[in-house]
Amino acid sequence: MSISVLRTADAWWVATPAGVAKVATRATTTAQLLADRKALEAATAGGRTVGVETLELVSPVTAPCRVVAQMTNFASHVEDTGGNPDTVPLTFFRKSSGSISGPHDDVVRPAHVRLLDYEVEIGLVIGTEIPVGTEIGDDVAGYVAGLVVTNDVSARDIQLPQTQFYEAKSYPTFTPTGPALVLLDADELKRFTDLRLKLSVNGETRQDQTVADMIYRPAEALRALTRFQRLDPGDLVLTGTPVGTALSAPPKPVEIIGSLLPPALKWKLFFRGQARNPRYLQDGDVIEAGVATDDGTIDLGTQRTVVRHAR
Amino acid sequence: MSISVLRTADAWWVATPAGVAKVATRATTTAQLLADRKALEAATAGGRTVGVETLELVSPVTAPCRVVAQMTNFASHVEDTGGNPDTVPLTFFRKSSGSISGPHDDVVRPAHVRLLDYEVEIGLVIGTEIPVGTEIGDDVAGYVAGLVVTNDVSARDIQLPQTQFYEAKSYPTFTPTGPALVLLDADELKRFTDLRLKLSVNGETRQDQTVADMIYRPAEALRALTRFQRLDPGDLVLTGTPVGTALSAPPKPVEIIGSLLPPALKWKLFFRGQARNPRYLQDGDVIEAGVATDDGTIDLGTQRTVVRHAR
Repeated sequence: MSISVLRTADAWWVATPAGVAKVATRATTTAQLLADRKALEAATAGGRTVGVETLELVSPVTAPCRVVAQMTNFASHVEDTGGNPDTVPLTFFRKSSGSISGPHDDVVRPAHVRLLDYEVEIGLVIGTEIPVGTEIGDDVAGYVAGLVVTNDVSARDIQLPQTQFYEAKSYPTFTPTGPALVLLDADELKRFTDLRLKLSVNGETRQDQTVADMIYRPAEALRALTRFQRLDPGDLVLTGTPVGTALSAPPKPVEIIGSLLPPALKWKLFFRGQARNPRYLQDGDVIEAGVATDDGTIDLGTQRTVVRHAR
Repeated sequence: MSISVLRTADAWWVATPAGVAKVATRATTTAQLLADRKALEAATAGGRTVGVETLELVSPVTAPCRVVAQMTNFASHVEDTGGNPDTVPLTFFRKSSGSISGPHDDVVRPAHVRLLDYEVEIGLVIGTEIPVGTEIGDDVAGYVAGLVVTNDVSARDIQLPQTQFYEAKSYPTFTPTGPALVLLDADELKRFTDLRLKLSVNGETRQDQTVADMIYRPAEALRALTRFQRLDPGDLVLTGTPVGTALSAPPKPVEIIGSLLPPALKWKLFFRGQARNPRYLQDGDVIEAGVATDDGTIDLGTQRTVVRHAR
């Protein structure tokens, strides 16, 4: 049975049919909480509950932790950004864990950023030590403690000229995480491909795809990752986003002409075009991002964040 | 006055004119050692010493820590890899700190890697907490505790198709670090641009340039980094490598023809060409990498590592 874990500034909570119940634990980090399984199970058994709407939720994944993200990993998104899903390599990049923010916190666009974009993603929360060289089979239940909704917010005008994704996706508030860390058992994790990712901006649906569209699934991703990177409990692995981001690639011929231009001119022309794209996030925009199976059996919940331009 | 800090499996040492002296400290991490300045200074004052050649040195930078690296940051290297030094953006990527190894450890090429390359770099070791948004002036002495020789070992056949550098530079032993962490005062740090980076393979010089060739200096790099990433004592910032790596870019016309080919074919042709390049590292190759001012006033020492192919 899944357990939905929530967090406030000074406590951990689990969802029960009657409301949310406080967890009797001294844990201050996600890793410590995952190790205190007894306290989690005791809390789900009942007792005093409050309405979830009375809580000010923060991210159920605590920083510092490793935040590792898969690059373009949905066939629909690869095609939309000019790639070929058959040849796109399984690729990781890092985000700073300082970018993690709560499921209702503002997403702050730094003053020097113009092209702010969204990417709803499923986050895998690691439940055990995974040293480099660990042999990982097809069942990831021993390694993944649970799943969480994340938004891999991206400054496209930083990301594209730099080519490396690290800075563009690491500013504070660029990884809204939550509302719930949903701990799943092995049978529930097998329904991973039935999960649907949805993201809307001001009520308009922008992303809406199931994991069926995902290229490299968690088992394959963890196998690749453990070739070079150890993981520890509480680490967060983002698994990529489906089609529908504000950024979409120029047609191939335009890209080839671009490769003939000096980089400074190429980016000037590209950004001038993108500035007219109304899909980039603006001050006051409301982003809602959620993940669930269509039958509602597994529901990671929905986060609601508001975009603010820093001055 | 600079202090050269060395580390063995169970102790810290400082260089003195008579030999190396053990530091009386309980520190087990670089951050803890930097906080124990009294013990460091007491050790440099003299007492019992041993010959440095009697020690089995490990990296003076302990993991876990953040390892952040600057992308192409020497004009000579940018030109050699097909870029324009005037327009290359100040760009960072991450390496896993699990890649840190000692100054005399083997560099292990994973079985699936073919094109193993070297990059001698100066590592900045952070000495204080630097939260995001810290205003950094031109004097970095308050933030940088010292410098260390590093080799940013790179699997080019992983790096280029993935485009993100994280995996290709994060395998275990891909960041040989040391021999010494050299703590410098503000006046000594001002001589940063006089440092010369040298790397040889089997005695043949491959890299030999001073920092005068560096595009974004430490003050500028830290200013850019603190826009999005906090740093803590013991974190390591790699500052880029000069010309001379095994990889050099194809001429522009070849690159443009490449952009017309499907990626799988483009990389097949590229790697077939590179396989004939004798400069990539092979089993048994001896890499020597060192950094010093030409007058020897500041000397970070030389590391000597041997390449081993994993089976």
